[in-house]
Amino acid sequence: MSQTVTEVRETVAALHAELTRYGLVAWTAGNVSARVPGKELMVIKPSGVSYDDLSPANMIVCDLHGDVVEGDLSPSSDTAAHAYVYRAMPEVGGVVHTHSTYATAWAARGEAIPCHLTAQADEFGGEIPIGPFALIGGDDIGKGIVATLAGHRSPAVLMRNHGVFTIGRDARAAVKAAVMCEDVARTAHLTRMLGEPVPMAQADVDSLYARYQNVYGQVAPPPAP
Amino acid sequence: MSQTVTEVRETVAALHAELTRYGLVAWTAGNVSARVPGKELMVIKPSGVSYDDLSPANMIVCDLHGDVVEGDLSPSSDTAAHAYVYRAMPEVGGVVHTHSTYATAWAARGEAIPCHLTAQADEFGGEIPIGPFALIGGDDIGKGIVATLAGHRSPAVLMRNHGVFTIGRDARAAVKAAVMCEDVARTAHLTRMLGEPVPMAQADVDSLYARYQNVYGQVAPPPAP
Amino acid sequence: MSQTVTEVRETVAALHAELTRYGLVAWTAGNVSARVPGKELMVIKPSGVSYDDLSPANMIVCDLHGDVVEGDLSPSSDTAAHAYVYRAMPEVGGVVHTHSTYATAWAARGEAIPCHLTAQADEFGGEIPIGPFALIGGDDIGKGIVATLAGHRSPAVLMRNHGVFTIGRDARAAVKAAVMCEDVARTAHLTRMLGEPVPMAQADVDSLYARYQNVYGQVAPPPAP
Amino acid sequence: MSQTVTEVRETVAALHAELTRYGLVAWTAGNVSARVPGKELMVIKPSGVSYDDLSPANMIVCDLHGDVVEGDLSPSSDTAAHAYVYRAMPEVGGVVHTHSTYATAWAARGEAIPCHLTAQADEFGGEIPIGPFALIGGDDIGKGIVATLAGHRSPAVLMRNHGVFTIGRDARAAVKAAVMCEDVARTAHLTRMLGEPVPMAQADVDSLYARYQNVYGQVAPPPAP
Repeated sequence: MSQTVTEVRETVAALHAELTRYGLVAWTAGNVSARVPGKELMVIKPSGVSYDDLSPANMIVCDLHGDVVEGDLSPSSDTAAHAYVYRAMPEVGGVVHTHSTYATAWAARGEAIPCHLTAQADEFGGEIPIGPFALIGGDDIGKGIVATLAGHRSPAVLMRNHGVFTIGRDARAAVKAAVMCEDVARTAHLTRMLGEPVPMAQADVDSLYARYQNVYGQVAPPPAP
Repeated sequence: MSQTVTEVRETVAALHAELTRYGLVAWTAGNVSARVPGKELMVIKPSGVSYDDLSPANMIVCDLHGDVVEGDLSPSSDTAAHAYVYRAMPEVGGVVHTHSTYATAWAARGEAIPCHLTAQADEFGGEIPIGPFALIGGDDIGKGIVATLAGHRSPAVLMRNHGVFTIGRDARAAVKAAVMCEDVARTAHLTRMLGEPVPMAQADVDSLYARYQNVYGQVAPPPAP
Repeated sequence: MSQTVTEVRETVAALHAELTRYGLVAWTAGNVSARVPGKELMVIKPSGVSYDDLSPANMIVCDLHGDVVEGDLSPSSDTAAHAYVYRAMPEVGGVVHTHSTYATAWAARGEAIPCHLTAQADEFGGEIPIGPFALIGGDDIGKGIVATLAGHRSPAVLMRNHGVFTIGRDARAAVKAAVMCEDVARTAHLTRMLGEPVPMAQADVDSLYARYQNVYGQVAPPPAP
Repeated sequence: MSQTVTEVRETVAALHAELTRYGLVAWTAGNVSARVPGKELMVIKPSGVSYDDLSPANMIVCDLHGDVVEGDLSPSSDTAAHAYVYRAMPEVGGVVHTHSTYATAWAARGEAIPCHLTAQADEFGGEIPIGPFALIGGDDIGKGIVATLAGHRSPAVLMRNHGVFTIGRDARAAVKAAVMCEDVARTAHLTRMLGEPVPMAQADVDSLYARYQNVYGQVAPPPAP
């Protein structure tokens, strides 16, 4: 296997620490994957393994149909959904799945999160949409994710009665979207508990989204510390 | 004492760290126990001792009537309830008790948690049931747990005006059930605060439960790190 | 100064870590004090000093009128209230003050926390009462605490529009009461958000309180780890 | 560059740890700046850099129009707002921006936080006001902050549909205001969820504010640990 797979193993193992840091996951219920650039491969968490025990060595390498190429353990039970997204959306380099609490509460009601915050306009460009209910075990979840997110600004979808899937140009961007999705879901929940948000003009949402996608952060990524 | 008791002491002492990690307990109000395989013994937390101070050496070994066999300290004041469960349910290898906040709020209202999430269907197979109010100090709590959970899919019961008891094939499984019970209780609470969940079909709940019990995780447990 | 003062300095400095561990305090807004056994002295946090910077050496020793006996810094701005409690209640060995969030919300509404949980019956023996609004800077807060708690089972009082004061036979017991007060306040809040708690019989509350005060924990304190 | 800039770099880098400690920020969405005393310079966080990776060396030095004077990275995308505040309010030595959850929920509804807590009277002297909606990228946010806070007791403003900006005589004071703003916003939210707060007399609010600004803490700052 190439160096590239080695690096992706390291990235995927390490990024799971962001899911626990931000409280997006309980026990083993959430996972990160990344596409191996230039190959028909992805790297994903093993199923049912504690976040404390993840390491580059126990990440699972699968092909884009979810079949294991390297690894002694079974891959995440959500592997089929990740794989479907990589097959259908070539621009996607990373996928994250969580049941983060506030976002999942919106998903349980089947309600999209409307956009009343500049932070949501920045990252999601408008509402965070609802995807269909789908059973695990085949391509249904993957199809629901792709049908909802293809052509949508939002990198996050709330799968009904289930939880959150996010996508990104790489795994780090997908993790960021998962973190921001829960942050926005919580703020929107609290806002609504005591009244109604002040509406934002669509032109302002559009302007914020355009700026954030192009101006925020560093032109080149900052050097590693 | 056999090696087995030594190992169970280690497991029980260590698993209490999951109760604090997930915020399921305040001060000393929660405990884990495990059956010693093949013996009429259980290992449980000492009463009123801080989680920081737990070690394999200060765990208490009791018989299945709650009488101390090994240990200098008094066992958990919930020992009688744990012991009753081990006597009545031979398939149970671990018991956990917490007053985790969201689950206890459902318990205070005497409301079962209805199943509107795939994560709840996976782990609990449907609703998380309410058990009776019972006073500490005899077999009443144990009887209430067993009467509620015997023949029920759920490994967790919400004891009215009190808190949560969970069971598992071993102590780790019971701790997982306690973690997931609070996670599900919190999401269900938040869902209901702003409306009603979309119902899930019973067939979907059944399908998810069947799959999770048989397919999730590793066929054999992953090697320790 | 005697060894005793040295030990009390260590205890009081260390116990502040429980306030931050349980999220009871923001910035520097909360404090622990202890009576020095057998002396007309108390040890308390210095005013406005970060919890990270507390040590036995920078604790302040005051007489029971709040005048500094040892220490280079100003004592907590709540010193007068602590001192009043020690003067009026000779059985009290420790006092804690916080603005912990859920308890303070009940205090802001001027509502006592009714007892619908076994954990509250255990520790508080019934409701957690409301004390009067009182301005800082003299004996008014101390008088309000004592007037509310004298003869009451509860070691915690919710001072109106302000926050929580707790008492105990020693500082550790007062800290425990502060931790359990917030835990109970949060569970009671969540309970009420979706309906009404099932009432508990007064006889059950009495029975739980009597048992917990006499049976819970170790007959002698467990040895330090 | 002078020693002073070096010291301000250290202070600003270190203070970001308080934003994460108190959960005021998600991912990279929040920033601290400080004026360099006696110079027309400010030090601010680089844009889009993780809090884990901040160090004195990668802080950005800007002039008071937001143009970079020292630093290899782009400054925070909120630099223009910070700079405007320093230009317009010479007494301000530090500025903080967060999207802390509870405060931002009040901001999304366009509601000021009314004062019903002694802690709010102490730090904010009354309500925490709402500022206008303003788009990022020019002086509009800065103008909104200054128009709201000039002549107001509160060091915090809730910018509509956006988040919190706080000011202080130095960066530490602005961070404290950001911490206390979220603490007060959360308590006020919880209070209102189950009823109405008991009103506080304006004279009491005034008295608390006057005392806290003059008496709380140490006459001279305590020595560093």
